[in-house]
Order: sequence, then C-alpha cells, then structure tokens
Amino acid sequence: MSESYKGISTQNYIAQLSIDCVIFGYQNGTLNVLVPKLNFQGDFWGLPSGFIYQHEDVDQAAKRILEDRTQMKDIYLEQFHVFGNANRNNAEFMSSLLAQNPQLQGSKEEYDWFVRRFVSIGYYALVDIKKVKPQTTPIDERMEWVDINQLPNLLLDGKEIIAKALQALRANFDDHLVGYNLLPETFTMKELQKLYETIFDKPFRRNNFQKMMLDLNILDRLEKQFTGAANKAPYLYKFKEI
Amino acid sequence: MSESYKGISTQNYIAQLSIDCVIFGYQNGTLNVLVPKLNFQGDFWGLPSGFIYQHEDVDQAAKRILEDRTQMKDIYLEQFHVFGNANRNNAEFMSSLLAQNPQLQGSKEEYDWFVRRFVSIGYYALVDIKKVKPQTTPIDERMEWVDINQLPNLLLDGKEIIAKALQALRANFDDHLVGYNLLPETFTMKELQKLYETIFDKPFRRNNFQKMMLDLNILDRLEKQFTGAANKAPYLYKFKEI
Repeated sequence: MSESYKGISTQNYIAQLSIDCVIFGYQNGTLNVLVPKLNFQGDFWGLPSGFIYQHEDVDQAAKRILEDRTQMKDIYLEQFHVFGNANRNNAEFMSSLLAQNPQLQGSKEEYDWFVRRFVSIGYYALVDIKKVKPQTTPIDERMEWVDINQLPNLLLDGKEIIAKALQALRANFDDHLVGYNLLPETFTMKELQKLYETIFDKPFRRNNFQKMMLDLNILDRLEKQFTGAANKAPYLYKFKEI
Repeated sequence: MSESYKGISTQNYIAQLSIDCVIFGYQNGTLNVLVPKLNFQGDFWGLPSGFIYQHEDVDQAAKRILEDRTQMKDIYLEQFHVFGNANRNNAEFMSSLLAQNPQLQGSKEEYDWFVRRFVSIGYYALVDIKKVKPQTTPIDERMEWVDINQLPNLLLDGKEIIAKALQALRANFDDHLVGYNLLPETFTMKELQKLYETIFDKPFRRNNFQKMMLDLNILDRLEKQFTGAANKAPYLYKFKEI
C-alpha cells in the first residue's frame, strides 16, 4: 500500500495544495494512463495524487508520489500546469469518503482543509508499462491502465488534466526527445513511427517520417546479426546516449 | 495604491500559495520587466505578486493582481511554472517587513502563514510599456522597468523565475504569435526583426527573417500612402485579425 495518505494534517502538509500525476504508458499502439478506481460506492475514478510535506520541495513531492504509486525509480517527470478553479471543491464526496475510511479520520481541525477547494499542480510521467507495479492507497479499490480515448468517469477536472498533459507531452515531444521513455531499448523504425502516430493521433508518411527521424540525429542503427534469416528483418534502432 | 495586500488572513486567502508575475515590456530594442523596489532598508527588489482569495479562480487572481499593478485591462497573460522549493522561506525578511509596516499587522494567527515557505505560481504578461501605470503596494518604495540583462538584487528565486518566464515566452513566441502584445499596432519588418532579435538574443538574417514571417501568413501589409516621399519609406505591417 502507498504511503501517500498517512497523517493528513496541516502540521505535516501544505493545506489546499495537491499534486495530480498523469502517468502515460504506451503499449501496442495505444497510449494509456494509470488511474485508480476509488473505494467508494459508484463508478468514480481519480488520478494518482497526493500532498506536499511542509519541508519538501514540490518537485520532490511529485517524485515521491509517483515512485510510491509505481514502485519505479528515475521516472521521466514534467510539471505542466496548475489547476486552480474556485469550483475544484469536492466537499460532499470527500466527506463521504472520509466517513467510509476510518483510517483517514482524525480531529475535525486536521481534516478541515481536506474538504475545501484544492489547487492542484499537474505532473506528467512517461513510463514503461512492463516495469510498473501499481500501488493502491486506502481510498483506492484498484489501479488500471486505461486507453486515453476511453477514459472512465473521472472526478472533478480529471479529464481536463489528462487533456492538458497530452497537449504538453506533444509540445515537448520533439524538443526533449522524451519518446525513449515509452519504448523498449531497441525498436524498429516502424515501431517508432507507430508511437508518434499514437501520440499525435495522426498518420505520418513512411519516407518522410524516416527522413525526419534520421535528420534529428538522435538514433543509432544497430548492425544486423549475420544469420540466414536476418536479411529480411528490419533494422533495429536505439536512442543515442546523451 | 494597489489592493493586493488588504486583509491578509487565512480566512480570506489560501495559505502558503502565492502568484508571481513577470511583466515583460519591450522598448527600443530592450526587453524589460516591471519590478518593485521594496520599502525596506537595503537594496531589495521583488516581483509583482499576491495571494489567491478562497473563492477565486487562480487564473482570475493572477489577472486581478496584474490589473491592479498596471491599471490595464485585457492583458496577455500565461501561467508558466510553479516554484516550490522547500527553501523558499523568507521568514526573517518577512517578519522585519511586517514589523515596519503597521498596516500589515494583525493577530499572530492571521499572519503565521505569511512567514512560512510559499509555493508560487508564475505567470508572465506581455504589455505595451506606454499603456502601463505602475501601482505600488504598502510594501513597495517604487516600481521600475528594468532591462532583463541588468536585473537588480531580487529576493529569493526572483532571477530564476524571470529566466524561466523568458524561456516559456520563447517557446510560445512562434506558436501563439504573442509578439503583437509587445508592438504598436503598425510596424516595419525591421522593427519586428529587432523584437525577435531582442527576445531570442541572437541576430537573424534580414532576408531569411522576412521570408519566415511572410510564410507564417500572420501579417497584413498596409498600402503605402501616395505622397512624394513615401516611396522610400518602408512598408508598414500589422498582425492579421484572428
């Protein structure tokens, strides 16, 4: 179980400020996000989230929450936007949720801020799905990878947060060459093209795509192994060491 | 005097969360930021900043603070980053500042959060310097436009915030065509080139620059007035209506 929800008190945490993580993973031509189904009557889903300790850097808090939820280290993580509308208030839902989860209950003062409006700092992460071991918190029933085109019933502005994360991912994709976080170590040009087509939700022409990638000068082409069948196998590439 | 510092209490504001504005203005080939010299012994400068009312959208708070400080409406404003290191703590300075400014003093409970670490949401604004009427707050001695290459002694991570704002401005500059916020309504190609050279801190070749701008298809060229001298005057351009 995740550590993220231990001791929710204003002595420990900055009040009314949270972190929401959009954890992207790519598999078989689908871009997925890792989301918890909440341990609450009805079909409610959230984003992996948490709070910031009084003596903790915000970026460090995001890293902690993410590592906690995935059991992975050194994840690619990018702060992308703050969500702070005055109506980000979940008082009714949060009150019920607290009532159902005795382990979250404390003195009224300790939890007063918990039912107020939250300003939330969005981070997106890029992970290799195969390496993630999803961890639940006391308020989760389970965690699931879901296709970003088939999102479940997300609380509050969850869908807006995911949409904005995708927008930021696209804007960063070429500049920061972050694609390697979503692929195995070696891959074919066709697999790389499929990843781009999935992220940008549009087709690329094969020749143009190959030229664009080679012009970026970020790929190393591996030598083919000399075997009888290898001649017909496509070249494998990997990202250059930076 | 600005309204931004009235009634600083956790009843009114979200604790430990602030907004910092980087207000960019362009004049005579120089990119400037509008910064307050603080009303405090020594040479301390800040950024125009403020807090978020409990029932106010974060974006709205940024707009309010900015309008309050510039007496301008409809300013181009963009959220760009959150600054949340654990050492963003100004307790000593803030305590002295409160002691020097009786109008800021209240009960200890009301101001306790004021000397803790602040997480600050950065917004940058692009304004026409000639239209701004800088307003001070009770903690400011005066406001000044300063060249971003000759910044004064900024408190805390002020320089980092400005550097990050400039980075975000550059990243957005072509995509969002925000340059028009920094220029008069009509301008010559040479003036536009000078703006780009100032923002990106590098020279452009005249022919390449003109071609790049015309290819973007964002400019309207105005017809020259037919006068004897006009033939030698350069063409004037303006940005297309969107």
